[in-house]
Amino acid sequence: MVANTVRAGVEIIEVGPRDGLQNEAVTVRTDAKIAYIQALIDAGVTRIEATSFVHPRRVPQMADAEQVMAGVPRLPGVGYAGLVLNRRGLDRALAAGVDEVNAVVVATETFCQRNQGMSVAEAVRSFGEISRGARDGGLKVTATIGASFGCPFEGEVGPDRVAELVRQCADAGAGEIALADTIGVGVPADVHRLVEAVREVTDLPLRFHFHNTRNTGYANALAAIAAGASALDSSCGGIGGCPFAPAATGNIATEDLAYMLRRSGLDTGLDLDRLITAAALIEGELGARLPALLGRAGDFPGELSPERDGGS
Amino acid sequence: MVANTVRAGVEIIEVGPRDGLQNEAVTVRTDAKIAYIQALIDAGVTRIEATSFVHPRRVPQMADAEQVMAGVPRLPGVGYAGLVLNRRGLDRALAAGVDEVNAVVVATETFCQRNQGMSVAEAVRSFGEISRGARDGGLKVTATIGASFGCPFEGEVGPDRVAELVRQCADAGAGEIALADTIGVGVPADVHRLVEAVREVTDLPLRFHFHNTRNTGYANALAAIAAGASALDSSCGGIGGCPFAPAATGNIATEDLAYMLRRSGLDTGLDLDRLITAAALIEGELGARLPALLGRAGDFPGELSPERDGGS
Repeated sequence: MVANTVRAGVEIIEVGPRDGLQNEAVTVRTDAKIAYIQALIDAGVTRIEATSFVHPRRVPQMADAEQVMAGVPRLPGVGYAGLVLNRRGLDRALAAGVDEVNAVVVATETFCQRNQGMSVAEAVRSFGEISRGARDGGLKVTATIGASFGCPFEGEVGPDRVAELVRQCADAGAGEIALADTIGVGVPADVHRLVEAVREVTDLPLRFHFHNTRNTGYANALAAIAAGASALDSSCGGIGGCPFAPAATGNIATEDLAYMLRRSGLDTGLDLDRLITAAALIEGELGARLPALLGRAGDFPGELSPERDGGS
Repeated sequence: MVANTVRAGVEIIEVGPRDGLQNEAVTVRTDAKIAYIQALIDAGVTRIEATSFVHPRRVPQMADAEQVMAGVPRLPGVGYAGLVLNRRGLDRALAAGVDEVNAVVVATETFCQRNQGMSVAEAVRSFGEISRGARDGGLKVTATIGASFGCPFEGEVGPDRVAELVRQCADAGAGEIALADTIGVGVPADVHRLVEAVREVTDLPLRFHFHNTRNTGYANALAAIAAGASALDSSCGGIGGCPFAPAATGNIATEDLAYMLRRSGLDTGLDLDRLITAAALIEGELGARLPALLGRAGDFPGELSPERDGGS
């Protein structure tokens, strides 16, 4: 039974301000990003991937990384991560005062080349450099293995390939491993296979990053917890990807995830109503209906109301 | 591991033409419903809840129940169920030539009164009458326990209450028990608790009916299979509810469910591309974007394409 295998204390990492926003077509003003982050903190979020220190030409939405970091509230118990893809990004992140660093190695050559303009081997070397730099700066560094469940260019990705990259990143000083289903193709059986393979090479804390592209993201999140994951990424509102592009889609939504976990007997420390408020805020900025469902359906049990007639 | 606990041979019951359509604001023409059913059969669907024999004033969308049944293709290996709420509905269903009957008892007084104008005890007595009539006509009858996971009017519903209704319906001749999360509030832990309670009172085949109202429907589907369910309801396109009403939402989508199950090593016998075609057909009729995601994201591995830059 899931109820017996899930553990208390899974950590929710809010990635809406970074992964959620970076693919949105609408450019969100810096002050609106900061208001979104403030609303997330008001809802109980304590670990936030606030921005990405990527070249502004690659991801224009993240061009204000320094301004975002300069504007976010500095509070005890609230930490900000910055995503970095190379040494230059790390230097910017350190200068901007991030609390931790998330660095990406994509598992396939084609996608790695497109994502960060280097081969997988070069990305692993770059991770080593980022890792040393971050740790020299006193910061924890997470190694995110992108496309761990499948690649949009090369198709299936074997758990052994992912595990080998995990081993290399662990050797290079990663303090946490994040396995990303970047294109939302995985199912719970994949999660279990991947954890099995990765546990052969490291005991580092495991974090998962799911997109709900094919409606498997929430099942995957529960599977990850059952398999021993210590942390899950999610984006409040389920933002991410362009709502008008055929194959793009968002991360699993923080509020929907928190609903499922609370009802599964896992306290996330998050306030669902305030998460819905934060999502409404960013929905207003983006001007598009968000993928998260809790804000539309309402909490349960909550304010109960008529639903339907004549069926089941 | 999920991969080790799921079984081959779970049956997918297509309920799009009934539960999917009945809450849609747009009235769909009879020939379009029949074309949708034909497209579903082309995709490999063999068990279809084709319509509901409810009073046309209650559910105008189902006013053409007889015409739908008169128009559907009669093929070896393809069976049609009709939903009925009382003896009058059963008589219509028998006259229309359904292959099986699905009768509903809602687990709470308020919802049962609103759904079918009777108390729960009256609904159980009515089920007994329907069951006798169906079996006299040589047909199998399913007892669907509505609001098994929660009620929009009364809140939480205890597994023991559901199990007691299951016992009464089993005693009254049900050949299958369907547990419906009518308002989409359940999580996998609820599924397991409910199966445990119901298994105390019956060995009948268990079928589950999930709505994805709060993004827990697909996780619930996997949990149901792991708990020993023999059948799952889903609607192609994920239709159901009015897309413009705040709290309404559809069943889990057949194509998204079939994707998850195929990738979990479970063959459903369904053709994903043809399911997507069937969903597109009904999407055109309804003129609204459907909740199913596979049609937008594409199968994987399928035709691989660029997805995103600069992140994970």
